[in-house]
Amino acid sequence: MPRRLVYNFGGKKAQGSAKMKNVLGGKGANLAEMSNLGVPIPPGFTISSELCLDYLKRKKYPKILKQDVEKGIVRVEKLTGKKFGDKKNPLLFSIRSGSRTSMPGMMDTILNLGLNDSTINGLIEKTGDHRFAYDCYRRFIQMYSDIVLQIPREKFETLIDKLKKKKNAKSDLDLSGNDWKEIVKQFKKLVMTETKKAFPGDPREQLWGAIGAVFNSWNNPRAKEYRRIYKIPDDWGTAINVQSMVFGNMGTNSATGVVFTRNPATGENKVYGEFLQNAQGEDVVAGIRTPRKMIELKKIQPAAYNKLIGLLNKLEKHYRDLQDVEFTIEQEKLWILQTRAGKRTALANIKIAVDMVTQKLIKKEAAVLRVTPAELDQILHPMIDPTIKYKSLAKGLPASPGAAVGEVVFSSEEAVRLAKKDGKAVILVRLETSADDIHGMEAAKGFLTARGGMTSHAAVVARGMGKPCIVGCSEININLTAKTFTVGNTMVRKGDIISVDGTEGKVILGKVKLIEPEMTKDVILLLKWADSFRRLGVRTNADRPGDSKIARDYGAEGIGLCRTEHMFFKPERVAAMREMIIARDEAGRRKAVAKLLPMQREDFIGIFKVMDGLPVIIRTLDPPLHEFLPKDDKSIRKLADNLNVPFDDLKSIVVSLHESNPMLGHRGCRLGVTYPEITEMQAQAIFEAACEVTKKGIKVIPEVMIPVVMEAGELANQRAIVDKIAKQTIKKYGVKLKYMIGTMIEIPRAALTADKVAKFADFFSYGTNDMTQTTLGFSRDDVAKFVPKYIEMGLLKDDPFKTIDIDGVGKLLEMGIKLGRKTKPKLEIGICGEHGGDPKSIHFCHKIGMDYVSCSPYRVPIARLSAAHAALEEKFKKKK
Amino acid sequence: MPRRLVYNFGGKKAQGSAKMKNVLGGKGANLAEMSNLGVPIPPGFTISSELCLDYLKRKKYPKILKQDVEKGIVRVEKLTGKKFGDKKNPLLFSIRSGSRTSMPGMMDTILNLGLNDSTINGLIEKTGDHRFAYDCYRRFIQMYSDIVLQIPREKFETLIDKLKKKKNAKSDLDLSGNDWKEIVKQFKKLVMTETKKAFPGDPREQLWGAIGAVFNSWNNPRAKEYRRIYKIPDDWGTAINVQSMVFGNMGTNSATGVVFTRNPATGENKVYGEFLQNAQGEDVVAGIRTPRKMIELKKIQPAAYNKLIGLLNKLEKHYRDLQDVEFTIEQEKLWILQTRAGKRTALANIKIAVDMVTQKLIKKEAAVLRVTPAELDQILHPMIDPTIKYKSLAKGLPASPGAAVGEVVFSSEEAVRLAKKDGKAVILVRLETSADDIHGMEAAKGFLTARGGMTSHAAVVARGMGKPCIVGCSEININLTAKTFTVGNTMVRKGDIISVDGTEGKVILGKVKLIEPEMTKDVILLLKWADSFRRLGVRTNADRPGDSKIARDYGAEGIGLCRTEHMFFKPERVAAMREMIIARDEAGRRKAVAKLLPMQREDFIGIFKVMDGLPVIIRTLDPPLHEFLPKDDKSIRKLADNLNVPFDDLKSIVVSLHESNPMLGHRGCRLGVTYPEITEMQAQAIFEAACEVTKKGIKVIPEVMIPVVMEAGELANQRAIVDKIAKQTIKKYGVKLKYMIGTMIEIPRAALTADKVAKFADFFSYGTNDMTQTTLGFSRDDVAKFVPKYIEMGLLKDDPFKTIDIDGVGKLLEMGIKLGRKTKPKLEIGICGEHGGDPKSIHFCHKIGMDYVSCSPYRVPIARLSAAHAALEEKFKKKK
Repeated sequence: MPRRLVYNFGGKKAQGSAKMKNVLGGKGANLAEMSNLGVPIPPGFTISSELCLDYLKRKKYPKILKQDVEKGIVRVEKLTGKKFGDKKNPLLFSIRSGSRTSMPGMMDTILNLGLNDSTINGLIEKTGDHRFAYDCYRRFIQMYSDIVLQIPREKFETLIDKLKKKKNAKSDLDLSGNDWKEIVKQFKKLVMTETKKAFPGDPREQLWGAIGAVFNSWNNPRAKEYRRIYKIPDDWGTAINVQSMVFGNMGTNSATGVVFTRNPATGENKVYGEFLQNAQGEDVVAGIRTPRKMIELKKIQPAAYNKLIGLLNKLEKHYRDLQDVEFTIEQEKLWILQTRAGKRTALANIKIAVDMVTQKLIKKEAAVLRVTPAELDQILHPMIDPTIKYKSLAKGLPASPGAAVGEVVFSSEEAVRLAKKDGKAVILVRLETSADDIHGMEAAKGFLTARGGMTSHAAVVARGMGKPCIVGCSEININLTAKTFTVGNTMVRKGDIISVDGTEGKVILGKVKLIEPEMTKDVILLLKWADSFRRLGVRTNADRPGDSKIARDYGAEGIGLCRTEHMFFKPERVAAMREMIIARDEAGRRKAVAKLLPMQREDFIGIFKVMDGLPVIIRTLDPPLHEFLPKDDKSIRKLADNLNVPFDDLKSIVVSLHESNPMLGHRGCRLGVTYPEITEMQAQAIFEAACEVTKKGIKVIPEVMIPVVMEAGELANQRAIVDKIAKQTIKKYGVKLKYMIGTMIEIPRAALTADKVAKFADFFSYGTNDMTQTTLGFSRDDVAKFVPKYIEMGLLKDDPFKTIDIDGVGKLLEMGIKLGRKTKPKLEIGICGEHGGDPKSIHFCHKIGMDYVSCSPYRVPIARLSAAHAALEEKFKKKK
Repeated sequence: MPRRLVYNFGGKKAQGSAKMKNVLGGKGANLAEMSNLGVPIPPGFTISSELCLDYLKRKKYPKILKQDVEKGIVRVEKLTGKKFGDKKNPLLFSIRSGSRTSMPGMMDTILNLGLNDSTINGLIEKTGDHRFAYDCYRRFIQMYSDIVLQIPREKFETLIDKLKKKKNAKSDLDLSGNDWKEIVKQFKKLVMTETKKAFPGDPREQLWGAIGAVFNSWNNPRAKEYRRIYKIPDDWGTAINVQSMVFGNMGTNSATGVVFTRNPATGENKVYGEFLQNAQGEDVVAGIRTPRKMIELKKIQPAAYNKLIGLLNKLEKHYRDLQDVEFTIEQEKLWILQTRAGKRTALANIKIAVDMVTQKLIKKEAAVLRVTPAELDQILHPMIDPTIKYKSLAKGLPASPGAAVGEVVFSSEEAVRLAKKDGKAVILVRLETSADDIHGMEAAKGFLTARGGMTSHAAVVARGMGKPCIVGCSEININLTAKTFTVGNTMVRKGDIISVDGTEGKVILGKVKLIEPEMTKDVILLLKWADSFRRLGVRTNADRPGDSKIARDYGAEGIGLCRTEHMFFKPERVAAMREMIIARDEAGRRKAVAKLLPMQREDFIGIFKVMDGLPVIIRTLDPPLHEFLPKDDKSIRKLADNLNVPFDDLKSIVVSLHESNPMLGHRGCRLGVTYPEITEMQAQAIFEAACEVTKKGIKVIPEVMIPVVMEAGELANQRAIVDKIAKQTIKKYGVKLKYMIGTMIEIPRAALTADKVAKFADFFSYGTNDMTQTTLGFSRDDVAKFVPKYIEMGLLKDDPFKTIDIDGVGKLLEMGIKLGRKTKPKLEIGICGEHGGDPKSIHFCHKIGMDYVSCSPYRVPIARLSAAHAALEEKFKKKK
């Protein structure tokens, strides 16, 4: 048996402390902690959890327990001036379970223990509320009968329903004090019928019954199931807290309220809360009476108010966080019922964290760790006002965060017309998007597609543009002819207003209020701190000078992925790109390529200027061809006219270029290997641009990246081409320029043979989108048909295109790093898949030793924060 | 310095032996070996390769060498009765390099060394051939000048050309003896001009010059390059063979010929060869005179003939293989110039191997190892008569071996009409094939497609049917409207005859002669022996009772893959399949599925009956949907009529089912997980069939295989469904039936997490087609655009859809086996991808510890042989 079975708390001291969770449970330890702090909490005692298993086995208590509990009761009586079982001033107890870790609602609680036909009079007298007292009494009988006497709750509810019918009462509120008194009578009769014994009137008998029942509740089925799921050991047992009840409804000198130590909406460092005079805590929640502002309490009860303010300061300093405090004033005496970390908005959380560092309450590390990436994400995008309630019309995959409101349009042409000419906000709704939609996407505020996954064209472009996007929303049925879409029986027409929430993946009919994002100085400061803690570098995936500028402003330390083909999504450029793709011989390709060269060079010059002094990884051409090919006869005819070739010829070329599985087709370096002139042109554009800006005194660090490599020989082949052009160009310009040539590791075989690939690579960058496609055998464009169902069924924990699949793809990433660094110990390794902006994935990247992550410009702050979290968590884990 | 520098051979004994390749080189060791055997070879001596490097460094010889060479010459003079430098009966030598391993053509050879203005007279006298002697002389001068004196060959050729012009001679044959004599004069003059010295007349000076030059040739650029490529150490050096020349043109008592110890075309155990009287070996090759049958030699020179026959027996017994022997009779004396393993046809090789076992010349193991899988493959398919010369019109991927001849047709309907009704042989030419083409493929003799890879629809079906097929033949341009295809300027019309060689991938215009296959009793015996050596089991991929029967007759030990969806390629069944695929809800699917159930059950009953007593792995549905969906409006309309639904509705469903990358789409167990009713129906069909045949006393061992698993949970889910139905059905029928449930490992993630997957699997079967697609990121249908180029460039060693990519896919296979057996040490593991029939891949499967391979019925014999090779090679490697 343990040294001590019963631990007193209250009266500004306690026999336990916050450190004794193993013995006192979480709740008991906190009550002890508050006592020791001198916080006036209703006194009581905790029965050690070490007793629980012993009791469950033997079904009896050590003899000494009775004496210790008796001593505890006497101590509480002294501290409260009330007496257990006294009919004038009765002491009532709450009996609560409390294990080491919170198991909300799993075990039992009994309130108002100590009430009987005699003590009820004291309660009536003290509160002056006859109805309240009988309501308390009947609730106690009901709870006790359920938990201790094992009489089903329904039997009691039936009696109440009968009386309500009789009295024509709609709700419990319509029943009077005498009605409840009648109910008490009926309840006691029911207990007699069910147990063949009277309901126990003796408070001590009640107490011991309750103690046994709470211990037993450790083994009730739902508690056992909970432990199984959350892997909580069965032998921990639960402690029991026996605490005196206090009442805020014992006259006008009583009150009850809830108060935050700071403003939970804004973070402002000012007490914020509400109270009700002569009322119970439940009344605040019920909303029958309007609560009053805290400042009014100062007028009514200045002493209690001042004491409360002092305590709030004390609690916040002690817990070093915003506290959400429940208090009750019982006949001028202030009691703190509970304190806990307060829920708050993302903005408030950041402000509080930063302020607390300034106030030296917490360290910078703690402030950084306290802000979650999701919170940061929230405040960086327009969001639906969280105070607004709305019903969503349909749900899809949350492909790009933020929210937008606008008129529905079904084509990019409409989007451009309405947005550019009429200045209207539009939401582009498509089956799926393609290169042809880029101008429409630029014009629209947000996108909604019926097909596609987290890395589909629409999703990738949207994240790049920082616009909200929902993809794979298979609930919507689009009718392009009628220009409508339907969800069940609801029809949405062109021009109707909808709102899209890309953070949640929700489509809402009509307009909802949005909150605009703000990069406050608190955020900027917090991220600066984060930067000082992280080990991972943070780069960005940006294809144009504009994107690059945004990313650099957001703190990107270089470009991790510049997708050269994305530069050609602009309508006037798509034509040249298509000409190159459909060219049937080298001469034709060289002609088309020559048109592309100056465009590319100009783009690179723009990007290099913006990224002055920072590395820029440029990926050579990697179009899954279908993204660029004209699809319908109309587009083919247009292209044929442009190129001055017969429609039939072009059509047959387009047909011959069709691929069954373009993701696994003739793309990436396979194009460069079979058509070296394409790689040559790109290398020329990159190095001419680099040399030109170098001449202007700008520092350029180009890193040329070869995509879709599955075999070291491919990289060797492409490397030789790029190297040759680079050397020629640098010599021609007569400048000094260092550059690197590396590869994307995105095909499983590249990771499996990374030791060989590394021989020809100055760096690796993981293309986890493609690697997820191939490792899981999922087409990013087709997963909407089953991935949501898989997540629902628990077959997948997360969307693997959002969060790295650690068991599968992660294993390949680790293998690739190990093999690559076996060949080149200092090989630079990063990630440029969409996962580079996902917090969980960033943690994993940190863990397996990558050098940097790269993500879309708008996710750079999130990546900076996540990288800091990963580093700090590792640091603190090591300390332990 | 080594103990001995010069090793004599000839005169029925030698100082070396076949084991001394390191010192004597390959050629020298063989000459020694033949000497020791008592074979009369022209005598000579070998200068040790151990001297080579020393000479190359110091450019001089140890003193002792001169004496040893002198002794060697004297010995040869004694044995031949000729004298080195003698003008009556001159001894001439050939000087040849010979390193440990054959380096054909890399180093230098000098013939007829010892000729000068005096010894030439002896040669003329002995041969009576003035022209021959001067031709020999001028050749010797030319060779010697090139190799020893470093005078470019061209300068000599120019002199010959000039004389030819002058004499109006078209070829060297038109020059007379005197002409060559004139040339010799001019050559010597040229040498004088070039070297300022006369051409060396002293035979000993000639010899030492030649020895030095041959040693030097070890370091000529082409020899160095050859060593670099084949990784031959530079410090091996070369030996030098100095061998006396013999002449078959020294009168009518001389002859020369080539003889095989058995018939190299048929394998018949009867000497087979040709000779020419009073002629040189070159004359046989030149084809000016018609060689005579060996039997005639018996009449002309019975003694030499009998001696030769005796020697042939001796050589064959010694080398235990068919020998290809060159001999010369110089004035009644028989000399063996060379013996080597004879080239032979596949059929002959098998017969010889089997016969030699019967004759106790070799062991069964050796016989099995001697027959290559490629040879076996050859004789199991119709093949183009190898004696025929033809020009191929186009080349594609060799997708299914064998050859066929027929009229070109461009549609399956035409194929059926012409073949079935008119009884014509047809070749089906398509862009690519689909489920719609099955009846056409059944009717045609062979297939040719412009698109697709080694595992495309056409390829897989063709191998299953055992018909020749060429896929991905991108050279052909099909015009369906005109019913023609063109290759460059050649146009082939419907009805034109073409031949297709699926073994080589060649398309031939017109008809070529074919040889029909034969499963001889030798083959059957050889394979029986092979079975006794192999450790790998051999199963088959068969989808119908007919295939299963063929495979069992070929020796399959079970079915490794029964593709249930293939059962529905028949036109009358495709409709039901389509109905299921396009059903939009569970009710619709259940209706369609109910139609499929009896068809499936009947198929399974048929297969189970054929495979009585052997295991049958049945894979649940795995259609990449696009293989079954109607593609054009015509087919959609037909289906709509069948199903009695409006065309527009069906069309929109088909559009919505379109997948961007069907290989990575909603297929395999993803269908079963999202639509469990499909798996339920299939399980029901399998177990009802199994129970029914069990009742009839047939032994059924069903193994249900779940495809496209990427996560253990998927398998757990499908396993539960199958298990439930199996138990229910077995109970209903009241039979005893053991079954297994396992999975295909074909997605990289399944291999990476095989330890988890194995928890729910009774067996693994590797689907290496899909795993190749995903691991390399190659779509089997789209690779024709770059894989041939990759192989040509050396970026890929083999087509990865034909031979397992060991570095990438192989690594995953090994990993999967290791992880899987970590969980279940006795887990049954096989392979059912197309690689299961590829010899190289089978070796790998053996090496990594698989239990069996499974391949198409027609490849079962090849797999049996390859598996035996793998086991035997492992055994012999271990012995070493």
